[in-house]
Amino acid sequence: MKNKTGIWIAGAKGDIATTMMVGTIAIRAGLVSTHGLTTMLPPMNQLSLVGLDDLVFGGIDVSDRPLSASAQSLYATSRTISRETLDAALPEIERIEHDILVDRQMAWKPRSPRDQSKTLAEHIADITGAIAAFKSRHDLDRVVVVNLSSVEPDPAPSPGHETLEGLDRLIADDDKDAVMPGVCYAYAALKSGCPYVNFTPNAGASMAAIDELARQAGLPYYGSDGKTGETLVKTALAPMFAYRNLRVLSWEGINMLGNNDGKSLDESDNKIAKIRNKGGVLSDILGYSPHAGIDINYVPSLGDWKTAWDLIHFQGFLDTNMTMQFTWQGCDSVLAAPLVIDIVRMAEFACREKESGQMRHLAAFFKNPLGVKEMALHSQFQMLLDYTMRHLGEKQTLSRTHDAGF
Amino acid sequence: MKNKTGIWIAGAKGDIATTMMVGTIAIRAGLVSTHGLTTMLPPMNQLSLVGLDDLVFGGIDVSDRPLSASAQSLYATSRTISRETLDAALPEIERIEHDILVDRQMAWKPRSPRDQSKTLAEHIADITGAIAAFKSRHDLDRVVVVNLSSVEPDPAPSPGHETLEGLDRLIADDDKDAVMPGVCYAYAALKSGCPYVNFTPNAGASMAAIDELARQAGLPYYGSDGKTGETLVKTALAPMFAYRNLRVLSWEGINMLGNNDGKSLDESDNKIAKIRNKGGVLSDILGYSPHAGIDINYVPSLGDWKTAWDLIHFQGFLDTNMTMQFTWQGCDSVLAAPLVIDIVRMAEFACREKESGQMRHLAAFFKNPLGVKEMALHSQFQMLLDYTMRHLGEKQTLSRTHDAGF
Amino acid sequence: MKNKTGIWIAGAKGDIATTMMVGTIAIRAGLVSTHGLTTMLPPMNQLSLVGLDDLVFGGIDVSDRPLSASAQSLYATSRTISRETLDAALPEIERIEHDILVDRQMAWKPRSPRDQSKTLAEHIADITGAIAAFKSRHDLDRVVVVNLSSVEPDPAPSPGHETLEGLDRLIADDDKDAVMPGVCYAYAALKSGCPYVNFTPNAGASMAAIDELARQAGLPYYGSDGKTGETLVKTALAPMFAYRNLRVLSWEGINMLGNNDGKSLDESDNKIAKIRNKGGVLSDILGYSPHAGIDINYVPSLGDWKTAWDLIHFQGFLDTNMTMQFTWQGCDSVLAAPLVIDIVRMAEFACREKESGQMRHLAAFFKNPLGVKEMALHSQFQMLLDYTMRHLGEKQTLSRTHDAGF
Amino acid sequence: MKNKTGIWIAGAKGDIATTMMVGTIAIRAGLVSTHGLTTMLPPMNQLSLVGLDDLVFGGIDVSDRPLSASAQSLYATSRTISRETLDAALPEIERIEHDILVDRQMAWKPRSPRDQSKTLAEHIADITGAIAAFKSRHDLDRVVVVNLSSVEPDPAPSPGHETLEGLDRLIADDDKDAVMPGVCYAYAALKSGCPYVNFTPNAGASMAAIDELARQAGLPYYGSDGKTGETLVKTALAPMFAYRNLRVLSWEGINMLGNNDGKSLDESDNKIAKIRNKGGVLSDILGYSPHAGIDINYVPSLGDWKTAWDLIHFQGFLDTNMTMQFTWQGCDSVLAAPLVIDIVRMAEFACREKESGQMRHLAAFFKNPLGVKEMALHSQFQMLLDYTMRHLGEKQTLSRTHDAGF
Repeated sequence: MKNKTGIWIAGAKGDIATTMMVGTIAIRAGLVSTHGLTTMLPPMNQLSLVGLDDLVFGGIDVSDRPLSASAQSLYATSRTISRETLDAALPEIERIEHDILVDRQMAWKPRSPRDQSKTLAEHIADITGAIAAFKSRHDLDRVVVVNLSSVEPDPAPSPGHETLEGLDRLIADDDKDAVMPGVCYAYAALKSGCPYVNFTPNAGASMAAIDELARQAGLPYYGSDGKTGETLVKTALAPMFAYRNLRVLSWEGINMLGNNDGKSLDESDNKIAKIRNKGGVLSDILGYSPHAGIDINYVPSLGDWKTAWDLIHFQGFLDTNMTMQFTWQGCDSVLAAPLVIDIVRMAEFACREKESGQMRHLAAFFKNPLGVKEMALHSQFQMLLDYTMRHLGEKQTLSRTHDAGF
Repeated sequence: MKNKTGIWIAGAKGDIATTMMVGTIAIRAGLVSTHGLTTMLPPMNQLSLVGLDDLVFGGIDVSDRPLSASAQSLYATSRTISRETLDAALPEIERIEHDILVDRQMAWKPRSPRDQSKTLAEHIADITGAIAAFKSRHDLDRVVVVNLSSVEPDPAPSPGHETLEGLDRLIADDDKDAVMPGVCYAYAALKSGCPYVNFTPNAGASMAAIDELARQAGLPYYGSDGKTGETLVKTALAPMFAYRNLRVLSWEGINMLGNNDGKSLDESDNKIAKIRNKGGVLSDILGYSPHAGIDINYVPSLGDWKTAWDLIHFQGFLDTNMTMQFTWQGCDSVLAAPLVIDIVRMAEFACREKESGQMRHLAAFFKNPLGVKEMALHSQFQMLLDYTMRHLGEKQTLSRTHDAGF
Repeated sequence: MKNKTGIWIAGAKGDIATTMMVGTIAIRAGLVSTHGLTTMLPPMNQLSLVGLDDLVFGGIDVSDRPLSASAQSLYATSRTISRETLDAALPEIERIEHDILVDRQMAWKPRSPRDQSKTLAEHIADITGAIAAFKSRHDLDRVVVVNLSSVEPDPAPSPGHETLEGLDRLIADDDKDAVMPGVCYAYAALKSGCPYVNFTPNAGASMAAIDELARQAGLPYYGSDGKTGETLVKTALAPMFAYRNLRVLSWEGINMLGNNDGKSLDESDNKIAKIRNKGGVLSDILGYSPHAGIDINYVPSLGDWKTAWDLIHFQGFLDTNMTMQFTWQGCDSVLAAPLVIDIVRMAEFACREKESGQMRHLAAFFKNPLGVKEMALHSQFQMLLDYTMRHLGEKQTLSRTHDAGF
Repeated sequence: MKNKTGIWIAGAKGDIATTMMVGTIAIRAGLVSTHGLTTMLPPMNQLSLVGLDDLVFGGIDVSDRPLSASAQSLYATSRTISRETLDAALPEIERIEHDILVDRQMAWKPRSPRDQSKTLAEHIADITGAIAAFKSRHDLDRVVVVNLSSVEPDPAPSPGHETLEGLDRLIADDDKDAVMPGVCYAYAALKSGCPYVNFTPNAGASMAAIDELARQAGLPYYGSDGKTGETLVKTALAPMFAYRNLRVLSWEGINMLGNNDGKSLDESDNKIAKIRNKGGVLSDILGYSPHAGIDINYVPSLGDWKTAWDLIHFQGFLDTNMTMQFTWQGCDSVLAAPLVIDIVRMAEFACREKESGQMRHLAAFFKNPLGVKEMALHSQFQMLLDYTMRHLGEKQTLSRTHDAGF
């Protein structure tokens, strides 16, 4: 089965995108293992997912720095890429460069003095044009659009977000306070017939208008905010306190990181969306809201190595107060990149299976899984297993029928 | 429904037993919350479990120190009991004293020069006698026997452990190398018609002979080794690494504690059983065996406050090595005591429901849950929920029938 | 030698003051050790310092909650005081109550609408009156005034701070934007002939005007900001990196606490003074300024137990980046209270020795030691040793002379 | 001033030696900074120490693996060497290879069946021969011998260790139980007229016989056991508790490492010497001996990255127990290598200055500094400063005299 699949990335030169590309190339070359990829585990690896060899990368970015410079920088500062891997990846990285549109205007903020001439409609036309060209240039069967761009402020609230008609009107009115870049990506992707994945905390995919568009177009989509580090641990660990009736008094989390994401979060406007997604998970799991401060601090020397420290103060039998603390030292891009590949493979599969709307079985991959109340990691993972087993069951029946035919 | 239930404890003056008694008294007096008790959570709290007011304490201990001295010592050294609670509990603690048999010979070791005259048969007769007297003195509907005694060395291996007939013969032969105190408690409990719970890592309840006896007697039993601290966290956290295909390279754990348990574990013979139960859980959850050192160090100043530090070294995408570490500062007895109450309440319920053999739905409470391969905490907890819902379903149907009758 | 010494405290009902009083009473009663007191160590214990039995407590507070309620609250929430200690201390605590002036107006802020009628001159008169009455009532040889009140915002900058004449004029003008409570305490203390110690981060004792007043009055004084926890560790540890030419890239510190101090610091105005004192120490020790974020978060459940986490990211040979992190779990009041006693004993001694001006030999006790550039803890401690040895030397010589006389 | 200095290393292919060589080459090439080198700091950098450009490497090793393979392995597993650095260093590394003698017999143990034919005298002759050849081949002004070999068991106690005459006799008797490899290196070095540095915990340099030999030969020597990680922190931090009269109840340390050193320490015989040096420092600094467990665990995946966790349990005012813990994640070889360079530079200087015997001013670099009781890091560092200032003072006077001459 030929099944060439494009991954068209908003933020294609960022750390996550670059890590994903270099890692995929390194796996193909046999230089590294497939650790980190959930879809390589049974039973997910028995679904007919697109192979890593059939993935083609392209996208858009606001930066005109070459993609190879991003790869070089990851190598030099975070040491997550070895020199051998870098050397092996650079030729293909340079080819991908040609599939990345650079648009410096693609990062506006609400209520800021405009220094840009393009309208929303023009931006959307650019994106759909770029996707179409990418698809045709590489003769792709399908393209999945993934948003990996920087955190952006929340758009101004608007009733236009509630319906597709309303969103169409906001775009026609060029209302850049209400329509942020993240919405343009979602809109353009679905209009282009592509499944859409919002890996950022940006509001884009959460609007009712986008859901309406996806269902109308018969396309799957999902988001938001990839669950990579501290929140991943939180959603694995918090149920333990719930099971044992250990009352969490305070759960304080400090995140330190030095990559571009950290820099952009340091601007307090952008911080809010991120922290909101991190904080909510505890109340959902515990059934009450403990004191739960969350800080994100920009510490340049850490580069892409996020260090998170969490302090959990809890009360047990005889009202005795006890303490747990953990330190998480993970490389954000290295944790995020394989998730994106997993999600893209599952989205391409869902698309082929003619599934549309929210891919709730992917809840385990997101801090704020759309349409899902369940925040406990293992229950979310069970949803993925259930989806997989259901499809394997169907397939098996199907192939049995085929067998019977002969 | 009158339902007076005795808890007959081997190790009745130890930290866990004392904490359980004082805590139960304090809850009854409204001095403290019921935090720490799983059976107070829905839906378990909808089962017709024995109430905390209906629990009566008794047991056996090798120490002739008064029980009130144990309570005083907990107050003075671990500060888990407030002075107000101690003052409120002491009168009843002094009454319980009379229900505790002191037997200094009840702690032998295999292959050690005997300084004791009593035979195994005499020990067992003493225990069954004490249980019977306790039951009759307090007019109890039912007695649950719980082993909370110190860690003991493994018995010498013997084919006699495999069948009830074999065990009977070992007892008749007074073979104290093959029959350790923990086996005597299990044997005597079941012979007395009491459900049996082994909360220690001792071999007792794991023998085929004991299983045969329990099924013959139509009684439920379970064990072994209460899951209170570091292992609890491990079984909540390890699945996260499995879900994400993050390869655990090393998972090193250090446990420091200063109570009697720590002291007894410092003697290397006793350490082995404990560490065995802690170590196994990772391979079961991960599907492979990472380097997993476990240390238990005796640090007197910590008293009952166990401090555990775990270092988890793992590999992700691009073969990047990352690190997580956690520190757990919990009071062992405070974590263990409510579990014992939970287990006793569930055992009494199972007994009333005429269930016999291993209570595998209680796997979540044990490091080494008999007859259960599943080590992930949430899957084990799901077993408890399933059991509970099944019983609530039955009851509901039953009560609906009753309703219909009027 | 009779030597009855009063400690007159601004903030006499706060956690530090209460802990100091209860602890002193407990030491006198033989209930606890003298751990935490530097002046109990050789060679300081060979100076003729005032004995703990000769200390008498009094002061002022803005709260009308009884002092005994402060002690009860420490007992109930932080468990630093045992019930036995509380019971033993309460009678004297109730006597001290009568020596505490309550003045709810004594906590104004600059540029806030005044809801108070008293002038600065009236406040100062009240304070000097209270000190005089305290001294006479207990027939004290000497009174040391200590500021332990809450953190206050910086006063509006004013040239009047530079000279005593200027300060007199600001007081006469009742300029409450430029003269904060902390300055009133310093001014009133020195005017009353008492040595003054500023244990808070408030600006008070740092003004040139106060220095002029102290020297004019021939009185010793010192401050500011007691060094109790994270900064104490920082100043002990940072020199290690300097000695080894390990380049500190980032030193991030998070402080969590739940006492009144934490609450008041959460109001961002007050935070600034505190953080300023914490941050400066690194540049002074290292000779350059690494990235050094400092956060103070209010976590109510922690009560008086401050938990600080520091992450130190540093670079060594071959430009290899390495990491150290520490967690400090200390009870703030328990760490601070003995320092106050130490400082008061040393101040009383200096006063008796007719020393005036800054007591720089006490630098080791302060985050921001007036007139001292040296921030390394051990160098500061050496200053205390040098001072002590010099005085012991003099004394010894003196006594030798006396000896010679006989 | 021409001043070509050889560093002749026992264990020349180990991690520390390789890191030192590669690092020195990288510094010369301007690829990395001089971080980690104490002798690059003022005022030490004003002494006329041998320049890094004038160092020449050679030595002996028991392994016949090429030195370049050691460098490759460091690059591949610990990522402390970048590919650029490795590529730049390899040519010179291959040249150094020729200056390393391979002798597989050079690692015997006491009381083990001998599988070796060479006598002690032959070994010593081999070493002195190799040193002489090395010196002459490179036309070196001076050679410093440094022991960086693996941990070895303690030799059998013998009165022969006490005098040079006794040691000579043990060698003549070929008593390999009493004379371990570490002693041979020391003996041969001093006999060859070279200053000697024992960076290992091995007993070698601590014998009275070696001291006699050094003084007789007029040569400086020192040791033992380089202070690189956990003990470094311990000696910086423990004085803080002493200053503040905070009673340390327990100080537990866990060291995890995965390099050859860790592997060799895992064999319990070798562990003892290492742990002895780590443990002693606390009693010396605190004046009493707290509970102080020390563990060294071999965790292969960590490679050269040692992770140490220390738990400090201490008591303060009101007998309140508090806790500090730290985690140290450092690369052992990267921390050790610059120390060796520092010590060699200082040893070469001392030799040129005609100083002989123990170089006690280097105490700060060793866990077990010979002839020095002072264990506090800053006091030890002060000894280095004092030595340096004394020499700078002399030189300055000298050069002033010279100046006066013109």
